[in-house]
Amino acid sequence: MKPDAINRRVLLVNRPAGVAQAHDFAIDHSTVLEPAPGEIVVRNHYLSVDPAMRGWIADTGNYSAPVAIGEVMRSLCSGQIVASCNPAYAVGEYVTGWFGWQDYATVSIDRIVQRTSAAEAKMALGILGLNGTTALLALTTIAEPKPGQTVVVSTAAGAVGSAVGQIARIHGCRTIGITGGPAKVRDCVELFGYDAAIDYRAEDVGARAAELCPDGIDIYFDNTAGAISDAVMPHLAQKARVVVCGTASYDRWEPWPEGPRVERHLLVKRARMEGFVLFDHMDRLEEAVGALRGWIAEGRLTFQEDLLSGIEACPDALAGLYRGENRGKRIVQLI
Amino acid sequence: MKPDAINRRVLLVNRPAGVAQAHDFAIDHSTVLEPAPGEIVVRNHYLSVDPAMRGWIADTGNYSAPVAIGEVMRSLCSGQIVASCNPAYAVGEYVTGWFGWQDYATVSIDRIVQRTSAAEAKMALGILGLNGTTALLALTTIAEPKPGQTVVVSTAAGAVGSAVGQIARIHGCRTIGITGGPAKVRDCVELFGYDAAIDYRAEDVGARAAELCPDGIDIYFDNTAGAISDAVMPHLAQKARVVVCGTASYDRWEPWPEGPRVERHLLVKRARMEGFVLFDHMDRLEEAVGALRGWIAEGRLTFQEDLLSGIEACPDALAGLYRGENRGKRIVQLI
Repeated sequence: MKPDAINRRVLLVNRPAGVAQAHDFAIDHSTVLEPAPGEIVVRNHYLSVDPAMRGWIADTGNYSAPVAIGEVMRSLCSGQIVASCNPAYAVGEYVTGWFGWQDYATVSIDRIVQRTSAAEAKMALGILGLNGTTALLALTTIAEPKPGQTVVVSTAAGAVGSAVGQIARIHGCRTIGITGGPAKVRDCVELFGYDAAIDYRAEDVGARAAELCPDGIDIYFDNTAGAISDAVMPHLAQKARVVVCGTASYDRWEPWPEGPRVERHLLVKRARMEGFVLFDHMDRLEEAVGALRGWIAEGRLTFQEDLLSGIEACPDALAGLYRGENRGKRIVQLI
Repeated sequence: MKPDAINRRVLLVNRPAGVAQAHDFAIDHSTVLEPAPGEIVVRNHYLSVDPAMRGWIADTGNYSAPVAIGEVMRSLCSGQIVASCNPAYAVGEYVTGWFGWQDYATVSIDRIVQRTSAAEAKMALGILGLNGTTALLALTTIAEPKPGQTVVVSTAAGAVGSAVGQIARIHGCRTIGITGGPAKVRDCVELFGYDAAIDYRAEDVGARAAELCPDGIDIYFDNTAGAISDAVMPHLAQKARVVVCGTASYDRWEPWPEGPRVERHLLVKRARMEGFVLFDHMDRLEEAVGALRGWIAEGRLTFQEDLLSGIEACPDALAGLYRGENRGKRIVQLI
């Protein structure tokens, strides 16, 4: 660490009703805190931008306590240890963890999620991090894909969805992606190997799903919880599994949105619908990363990254995700 | 079988939009058909009246093909074999099965669900039949009750619900029933051993559920799919299981009813919601009946029957169920 290094921090300054916009954040400059015994200082190289941040900012019931006003925005980051007061971690090591949107994080080692490497520092935030491991563990633990089954994925070209589609294919499934716009439809088929893709902006999702899945949908992996799901649910097969992995169709749950009731579909189809949050499965992270790394090496799993440059990009980065402007995993690169 | 016995049959004569009313059925008189080789003739003693009949009559997608116009109303029945052309079944034996709302059924033995006895002929339609086995198998296979967990049951005093509450209690759970009116609330607590009961007609279900389940609801066993569920869902505990066993709040699904979206609850609580249909579990029927019989003998499981008399009661019996006029399992007694 350079002496007197300046730490730029992206702070949450307003609690928005929906998705945080650029003006809900402010960037300040402070000195890097000295590590206390047991702590480390991480120089962040990459900052993650995730749809789930909407929930971390909201002050309603959620996975975790909300980010406080005036606090550094919570995020997964990937960086290099530049100072260490902990014998378990050496200066120079690469780690990912909950370091927040800032240049330097002086933190306890319980903020570390995993060790990584210079080569994988960026992937460790996407395909080898939250997104890839969520895709793999949600699909396999909840949906139990079997060869020959039909899997429909919403946000099919996104960081999680694109991995789900490819992992389902690796498990021998037929995969149908749902995405928005011709460019993403093309990505789904050409890049991510979906057997077909539906453009929800241009096509009747229900009619196309019925046409593409004449024997019904065995697995619906959903990240939307809105009109797209409503169109998919009537086409579930008997004993279908619906993975509820995200609710991107809504940027707020106050007032609580309504939609067609799912109970009758679940009953008539003896189907199962279940929520997945990665934090419940941290004990399987290493195993999941190993599998993903193997498929990447074999050329069976690919991914897109949407790289923004410089910490100044952070404040608007989340709002941009909800505007759908990214192609693939959004990451802010600092150095 | 008496020579020239007359068979009174309750035929479906109209396909109603919602719940079939008395005028949607007609009773005719015909002669009893002679059994073909392999067939038997059953003299029905008891006819079952079940909420699920609404679905069997509707011509929309369902568990099974709809009852045809002019056909005898499909139902589970309990009776005695009065003629047999099948060596596997002797005259005098008691059986339950899909014999329909009529005095005599001349049927193939694949219509038989189980052998029973004179002593259990009536129970075999309720607590030892569809209702009790549904309660036991739905609760244990989907919800996996554990000692100390909190179980909320809708239609808590009904034929299925009352068994669910008691079986959950036998599994060491705390049980909260939701039912309508002071008489059923009293039954829940005094007869079926619920720790507490909520009167949805008089009380704020959500507020009471929050009060009675301060640590959240581990298992919600639902037979309603309407406003009661909407009030319960926000109070699920982490890793909750929601058993979708019926949709009694709606007597039609055209137009499809809307309600508050469940996805966010399932995601934030990592909860599971799953439909249960007994017909998928027929291989476990005998085991389930054995367990239920044991608990009845030990005085740990009780039940209510709502006995109607004579086949003339059939046409209005289903509509009456949906009017909520029964206390316990509705059965039509013929002899």
